[in-house]
Amino acid sequence: MKNTIGRHISCTIFGESHGKAIGVTLDGLPAGIRIDEDWIAMRLEQRKAKGRISTQRHEPDQPIIVSGVFEGFTTGTPLTILMENKAQHSQDYEKTKNRLRPSHADYSGDIKYFGYQDYRGGGHFSGRITAPLVAAGAIAQQILKANGIELGTHIRCCHGIEDCAFASQETLLEEQLHKLETIDFPVLDERSAQRMKEAIEAAAADGDSVGGILESAAIHVPAGLGEPFFDSMESVIAHYLYSIPAVKGVSFGHGFGFANLFGSEANDAILCENDRIKTRTNHNGGINGGITNGMPLLINTCIKPTPSIYKEQDTIHKTTHEAEKLMIQGRHDPAIIHRARVVVDSVLALAILDLYMERCAVVALQNHRKEETI
Amino acid sequence: MKNTIGRHISCTIFGESHGKAIGVTLDGLPAGIRIDEDWIAMRLEQRKAKGRISTQRHEPDQPIIVSGVFEGFTTGTPLTILMENKAQHSQDYEKTKNRLRPSHADYSGDIKYFGYQDYRGGGHFSGRITAPLVAAGAIAQQILKANGIELGTHIRCCHGIEDCAFASQETLLEEQLHKLETIDFPVLDERSAQRMKEAIEAAAADGDSVGGILESAAIHVPAGLGEPFFDSMESVIAHYLYSIPAVKGVSFGHGFGFANLFGSEANDAILCENDRIKTRTNHNGGINGGITNGMPLLINTCIKPTPSIYKEQDTIHKTTHEAEKLMIQGRHDPAIIHRARVVVDSVLALAILDLYMERCAVVALQNHRKEETI
Amino acid sequence: MKNTIGRHISCTIFGESHGKAIGVTLDGLPAGIRIDEDWIAMRLEQRKAKGRISTQRHEPDQPIIVSGVFEGFTTGTPLTILMENKAQHSQDYEKTKNRLRPSHADYSGDIKYFGYQDYRGGGHFSGRITAPLVAAGAIAQQILKANGIELGTHIRCCHGIEDCAFASQETLLEEQLHKLETIDFPVLDERSAQRMKEAIEAAAADGDSVGGILESAAIHVPAGLGEPFFDSMESVIAHYLYSIPAVKGVSFGHGFGFANLFGSEANDAILCENDRIKTRTNHNGGINGGITNGMPLLINTCIKPTPSIYKEQDTIHKTTHEAEKLMIQGRHDPAIIHRARVVVDSVLALAILDLYMERCAVVALQNHRKEETI
Amino acid sequence: MKNTIGRHISCTIFGESHGKAIGVTLDGLPAGIRIDEDWIAMRLEQRKAKGRISTQRHEPDQPIIVSGVFEGFTTGTPLTILMENKAQHSQDYEKTKNRLRPSHADYSGDIKYFGYQDYRGGGHFSGRITAPLVAAGAIAQQILKANGIELGTHIRCCHGIEDCAFASQETLLEEQLHKLETIDFPVLDERSAQRMKEAIEAAAADGDSVGGILESAAIHVPAGLGEPFFDSMESVIAHYLYSIPAVKGVSFGHGFGFANLFGSEANDAILCENDRIKTRTNHNGGINGGITNGMPLLINTCIKPTPSIYKEQDTIHKTTHEAEKLMIQGRHDPAIIHRARVVVDSVLALAILDLYMERCAVVALQNHRKEETI
Repeated sequence: MKNTIGRHISCTIFGESHGKAIGVTLDGLPAGIRIDEDWIAMRLEQRKAKGRISTQRHEPDQPIIVSGVFEGFTTGTPLTILMENKAQHSQDYEKTKNRLRPSHADYSGDIKYFGYQDYRGGGHFSGRITAPLVAAGAIAQQILKANGIELGTHIRCCHGIEDCAFASQETLLEEQLHKLETIDFPVLDERSAQRMKEAIEAAAADGDSVGGILESAAIHVPAGLGEPFFDSMESVIAHYLYSIPAVKGVSFGHGFGFANLFGSEANDAILCENDRIKTRTNHNGGINGGITNGMPLLINTCIKPTPSIYKEQDTIHKTTHEAEKLMIQGRHDPAIIHRARVVVDSVLALAILDLYMERCAVVALQNHRKEETI
Repeated sequence: MKNTIGRHISCTIFGESHGKAIGVTLDGLPAGIRIDEDWIAMRLEQRKAKGRISTQRHEPDQPIIVSGVFEGFTTGTPLTILMENKAQHSQDYEKTKNRLRPSHADYSGDIKYFGYQDYRGGGHFSGRITAPLVAAGAIAQQILKANGIELGTHIRCCHGIEDCAFASQETLLEEQLHKLETIDFPVLDERSAQRMKEAIEAAAADGDSVGGILESAAIHVPAGLGEPFFDSMESVIAHYLYSIPAVKGVSFGHGFGFANLFGSEANDAILCENDRIKTRTNHNGGINGGITNGMPLLINTCIKPTPSIYKEQDTIHKTTHEAEKLMIQGRHDPAIIHRARVVVDSVLALAILDLYMERCAVVALQNHRKEETI
Repeated sequence: MKNTIGRHISCTIFGESHGKAIGVTLDGLPAGIRIDEDWIAMRLEQRKAKGRISTQRHEPDQPIIVSGVFEGFTTGTPLTILMENKAQHSQDYEKTKNRLRPSHADYSGDIKYFGYQDYRGGGHFSGRITAPLVAAGAIAQQILKANGIELGTHIRCCHGIEDCAFASQETLLEEQLHKLETIDFPVLDERSAQRMKEAIEAAAADGDSVGGILESAAIHVPAGLGEPFFDSMESVIAHYLYSIPAVKGVSFGHGFGFANLFGSEANDAILCENDRIKTRTNHNGGINGGITNGMPLLINTCIKPTPSIYKEQDTIHKTTHEAEKLMIQGRHDPAIIHRARVVVDSVLALAILDLYMERCAVVALQNHRKEETI
Repeated sequence: MKNTIGRHISCTIFGESHGKAIGVTLDGLPAGIRIDEDWIAMRLEQRKAKGRISTQRHEPDQPIIVSGVFEGFTTGTPLTILMENKAQHSQDYEKTKNRLRPSHADYSGDIKYFGYQDYRGGGHFSGRITAPLVAAGAIAQQILKANGIELGTHIRCCHGIEDCAFASQETLLEEQLHKLETIDFPVLDERSAQRMKEAIEAAAADGDSVGGILESAAIHVPAGLGEPFFDSMESVIAHYLYSIPAVKGVSFGHGFGFANLFGSEANDAILCENDRIKTRTNHNGGINGGITNGMPLLINTCIKPTPSIYKEQDTIHKTTHEAEKLMIQGRHDPAIIHRARVVVDSVLALAILDLYMERCAVVALQNHRKEETI
């Protein structure tokens, strides 16, 4: 389905960085959801470029809802959001359009689209396409919140500088998630935030860029979501996360750390506290056998350093294939990890909502059946 | 679609560990593929439990092709393979069926299926279901081979013991892949193999288990496969890989290592050698912007330690929820990483073949169009 | 998805007429459904060939459930049913295998599968593949019944001989549906049944075949199922019905008769009786704007005459393309309309159940939301 | 997927009749297609309301391409077309908004969307949403034309007045299709056109409406498209056609007429003329066993009379459920069959293109394989 994802709440994105507009269509939304435009605006604001640690391209990212909302509530029909492109500097791309930018989609995209793609600003490959995704994710997240499910993401590590990990204690974790919602640079420990910003600024000053790791959590996700094999929770969530440009690693719970543990260390002992079944540790990140177990979902996502740097790079000419030196022009981010946080939240919200609706259908049929005789 | 995956070559799995049979249906296969049953048998053999480093349950895993093959060739219609279960010891599960096994799907599966699942041997959650997947993957891999694409997997790390990484030089890599095809314990450096086996045996002797990391490569994958967003190469491959039980981490190229690199270190310089466009390094693992760039695909998959251990564990009773001590009975693997290798190869083959067929359609239409006037 | 259909309850079929076995996999079933094997056997019995009005190939059609059922109840995991082929006379097809049978899939199938298909008995194109579909449909119908939804089908017309139409009064219609469940030759008016059988026997005696029209109804389908455009009730139901071999027409309510009506005649006036909203007439067959309105679903399905006849026909040789006379050998049905009835019921049950589950998810989310504050 | 259809070329529609804009996203298009905006405009013109036989709502239907086209050619990324709503008279719907309009989606839509739908002008159920569908279909049709496939539709019957059927001779049929492309009222026999228009005008004068039957043909569709069961040509085409509001019947070839034929009359004898395999007759409408056979596709689609009439009708109040008399206000079509023609062409083009691309993939893989050794 290429640019559409989701079985219950399907999400279709479209647009190019320097085209007329970018947008998203959400289909399958329940009717009667009051759209909180301020919340959407706040999430978009968190994705926006700001200060010296971001690109100097400043887009208003004003979402225009063209369908699917009537008198302030969702109608249940496809909800399309448009954002006009206003701050294009297309000429920045003219000069270098024939030099394939390393680690960008210039070459792979050229092959894929037989040379017809819009090269300006990365075209459809641009991180800019994630803006409508954030608007869509904000709506999904509102629905999840109304059903008690909260989620959030912080920078766990930025170019070697670590933030503390999420709390294992659930009420503390909930507080951390609430706090993350309202801050711009999403780090739990204020001192780490300062050091990370300095590292990004230093890279920027040097014409270079940095990456990092985002840690996400979702709480109050009911047990029983996901499938044993092809649509395991991990499969579906990873599918959504890997649709974000620059993501090169996704892991759950203890992730790659499992490679060095014994089973006796890795297993999460089961206990029952106040009538609730829990695990003592949560190495499995809330998922066993592909199915949620009611514990917090814990996910790590690695964001590679932004490939647009101002240092000279070796590349070739697109058509002659001759070796060339490339000095990238234009406005670019020395890091996107702080902006990517809200994109990660958005696709997580879309993924979890989709599986949650699947579960709703199964439970509804199960409950109905109980009242009947077969 | 739950137990079905794939847009072009769809794969449906079914069966329980202690049921009558397990199986797989592959739909969308090209007609006229000669089925090499020896090759399938060899792959199944590599998945089989052997020696002290594996479970003592020995299943013949004899594949019975019930449809889709006529006179030795695929017909193009659904190809279904059955494997009968023969070596069940269902009574092993009777004694402990009310004690939720930590880090297994006992609890999450119980919630998901409202208590109706077949609990014996993990039921549909059993790793045993991967046997038909291996048969299916072997067929997909044969088709890829016929189209020039080779892939393989080795144990990069097992409980801290490392194998050398895949060669960056492509002809060396190709040799490594060929060698891996025929060996049972898939490690590049023979000395590492020995040390890993010893570590697994030591864990087994202690009633414990270990995990590890598998490194996979695919070569001669043409550039242009995958989509910019929701069906990026990474999204699709991760979706397939995370359907394998015990996988908790998937990364591409430099993976989580990107978090500590500058963009200037991470970017892969582009060059042209003998008319072929390549990158000097391959940190991006053959994928830029979600699309293959013609370089080898490089993927790391983390397998957690087998949760079935013979040490005493804390858990609760399924219905009374009272705390209990669990001593797992039955026959279990102290490590599955060496057996999981061929499962990883199989789902990789299915994933790549699916995206390859998508690309075939697009190229075919593109070529056709060139000869016409619009 | 080719041989798989259904978003919630997916159904995958496989097998060839003269292969080892044919089968079906149902995925997404609720857990805990008690499988009534007698009911499935009864439905399969109704599909079976009997007497002079059917083929003389008599297959036991014994369904073997290989997965997805544990201790008599569905587990919620994929349920696979196999049926072994036992009464093949493959040599019947040897003699004529190079003569393309008119109005069969011999030529189109040969092109589609590049000559590799199993030609014996129609291979995967055989109506025989509908046997597992009937088993699958019987399970879907059991679930619908448990949720209050009843459906059934009768022969509205067979080679010009008409049965009376379904009653417009709903309690009468319900009685008719119940009566149809237990009779072999599904006609409402006994006299029509007699005349139809005579017509079929006369055609059989003449080496010829006949077709007809099946009228189906489903009652107590709740209002609100279906989608405004691409997944309208009509779209989804027609998709399922047209998967049955020999179906060449599908219409809803007044169907093609609408072409001669004025809007003022065609519109169904709305009224409220005993707190239930109904329409005075039901020309729209229970569907407005693609969505069910709570009135009975009314569907007509045209089955073409069986193409296998014993009269001499003009055709060509498969490879030389020279004109040839064909005298079909083997055992064939002079009519399949009485056997097709239960296949129509089966795919209708699968289609309605799928849309019903979709609705369950939406309603469940809607209800949940009402109790929360957004 | 609700408002998205198509596996290769997916089509997503959105919008409400009186909302800000309506639109469509086409994803999966080949890159490098020159978009012929004049042709799209011509098709949209043919869908437009004109004269006394249509509604007096006149919308410019100016398509705005917001993405997926660069320098006049498709880029291969999602192509989104918007059309602003400009000529709404929303107050027309205020007066009658609480009276459920018979045979409209007012009641079924109200249940489906829990009362939150935009009721003005039918909201998302409006035939107006077919305007972007026509733009999308025009692009699909251009691609088919570039691959040699032509299609077209005429009014076979309007309220009992018949047009002659399509020619059985293929070159004559091709001429007929070409002629239909450029005329506004799509009828083969000029005299029938006159009589049909008079019938529509007479109905309009009486405040009533009429329906009819559209006959469509597609030529040069290669043999081998479609699947044996769930994605038979008939299944897929019917699915698309039934997504058009007002369609209540779809049949192929001889359609419901098969019910009265003997097999010996119905079968299409096979012959070979000038190296091309054909059938003497084409009762099966170019499809055998769900697969195209290379003969022209022949499809009949029944359009019911427009439910909006100016005669008094019996209905109930939406909330009180009390009986009321309804006199519909606003601007409505006394017939839509002449306007629906181009919508039918559009969804046919989308359906055939999707199956054509599927076939391209299979053939490409088949051809590639031939050159290799397995």
